[in-house]
Amino acid sequence: MGGGSAGQPRLLTSPTEMRDEVLAARAAGRRVGFVPTMGALHAGHASLVDRATADCHEVAVSIFVNPTQFGPGEDYGRYPRMLEADTRLLERRGVRWIFAPRVEDLYPAGAATRVVVEGPALPFEGAIRPGHFSGVATVVCRLFTALPADAAYFGAKDWQQTLVVKRMVRDLGLPVDIVVCPTMREPDGLALSSRNAYLDAADRGRAVALHESLLLAERLWHAGAAVDAIERGMRDVLEAHGVALDYAAVVAAESLGPVPSQPTAAVALVAGRLGSTRLIDNRELPPRPSAD
Amino acid sequence: MGGGSAGQPRLLTSPTEMRDEVLAARAAGRRVGFVPTMGALHAGHASLVDRATADCHEVAVSIFVNPTQFGPGEDYGRYPRMLEADTRLLERRGVRWIFAPRVEDLYPAGAATRVVVEGPALPFEGAIRPGHFSGVATVVCRLFTALPADAAYFGAKDWQQTLVVKRMVRDLGLPVDIVVCPTMREPDGLALSSRNAYLDAADRGRAVALHESLLLAERLWHAGAAVDAIERGMRDVLEAHGVALDYAAVVAAESLGPVPSQPTAAVALVAGRLGSTRLIDNRELPPRPSAD
Repeated sequence: MGGGSAGQPRLLTSPTEMRDEVLAARAAGRRVGFVPTMGALHAGHASLVDRATADCHEVAVSIFVNPTQFGPGEDYGRYPRMLEADTRLLERRGVRWIFAPRVEDLYPAGAATRVVVEGPALPFEGAIRPGHFSGVATVVCRLFTALPADAAYFGAKDWQQTLVVKRMVRDLGLPVDIVVCPTMREPDGLALSSRNAYLDAADRGRAVALHESLLLAERLWHAGAAVDAIERGMRDVLEAHGVALDYAAVVAAESLGPVPSQPTAAVALVAGRLGSTRLIDNRELPPRPSAD
Repeated sequence: MGGGSAGQPRLLTSPTEMRDEVLAARAAGRRVGFVPTMGALHAGHASLVDRATADCHEVAVSIFVNPTQFGPGEDYGRYPRMLEADTRLLERRGVRWIFAPRVEDLYPAGAATRVVVEGPALPFEGAIRPGHFSGVATVVCRLFTALPADAAYFGAKDWQQTLVVKRMVRDLGLPVDIVVCPTMREPDGLALSSRNAYLDAADRGRAVALHESLLLAERLWHAGAAVDAIERGMRDVLEAHGVALDYAAVVAAESLGPVPSQPTAAVALVAGRLGSTRLIDNRELPPRPSAD
């Protein structure tokens, strides 16, 4: 729709004020798009905002580093917070609202409710980061109440997260369209992530291994290789670059289960650590005849 | 507001149609009240409908025997289903919509999302019926999406359930007022429940013990008795009538934790079995100086 406000974005912290503004805009016939973020915005987030601006009359961006999706010993404390720089980026893109609640605005004292998704939330990130997807589902559900937009925009870089959010939205009948947008990359192929800022120069060089393993997976997939051979090839690339591997897998794109014998869209998923920095990436693989 | 439609209630099974009707009514300035039920309606449900009709322009009643709140070996299969009789009762009370979804309308194939509440959901019914309150919270959350009313009406007979629903609504910021209405009783004091229909004549006679134990608790509470003495008195009444006791307790009314030393509203809770029928009841106790 090519929307986008000309003025300054309005910064809100109150969920009820945020909700009232969105409902008033929608009652006035404006389509509202929502981009949920944890801030530390980069060109990947900007591409979500641009897509939302193209689709909607008004765009809201939330900035909230959600404590419940970080596990003990994870990087909640050091996760980058830079509201001023984030605000400047969003100003330039015609965003109407920035929703930046405090933790206590979204989680009142005595909060005791979690949204738990099984199915696509169980393997991979769900197995390695217990509670992570429950934290994601809970905060997204809470954000959708505060920000009842027509559509919400998520990056394909967090592939499994997009499946979890889509499943929750379907199961609870939440009235919002989930739009998944392509991963943005550095020139060498590294997927954009706020966590890339943690990498020192040596690890930044090695980090290209994730994307290279995915390109290899794609070539082998199109050449008709068996899934286990593709996964072995991915692991070899990652280990050769010194990535401490969490997983490298080719699975059905929607269920994350084994690739079935009939032609099915698949996805190559990879996660690993470089020093204290954990990175993930993925690549969709189009349907092909049986891989095995 | 003294609302209530003159005509036949409209029977809907589709969550999206139900939602569209409610949103259209609200957009036209009508206040909408919602009474969620499992059917087998009795005068307790009727009192909720009457309260909703008094408060709202339009009233919706859902009838859905929710499988996810029954445990293995509980009475999901034999729970009474009588949509025709229920419909007649609701017609007479000016209800506008009856929402009677099938299981697959609320739980699509592959449904994998649960809403889990801790805090007030943990003791008593939560301890005895694992998963029960998660089933309740999930279906209520799903129903509130299909039926986005201004207010929803629950009976105080299921006291702990009202706490769980209120906590979920607060934690997720759901935009609905929760109204708790008084328990309706038979002339001898037995709380109305669809499960009373299971009782044979002998057990029906014994069932009065639940209410008698609560009246004793109230007398002892006002007389300044200690909590453990009150609970002992309740147990004696129940055992004398042959009720197989699950619990008889006096706790803080909102937290369900121990009654604190400062004056606090309390609640006496009782649950037990007569034959294969499980009954619960409760009585609010006004704040008094320390009970211990």
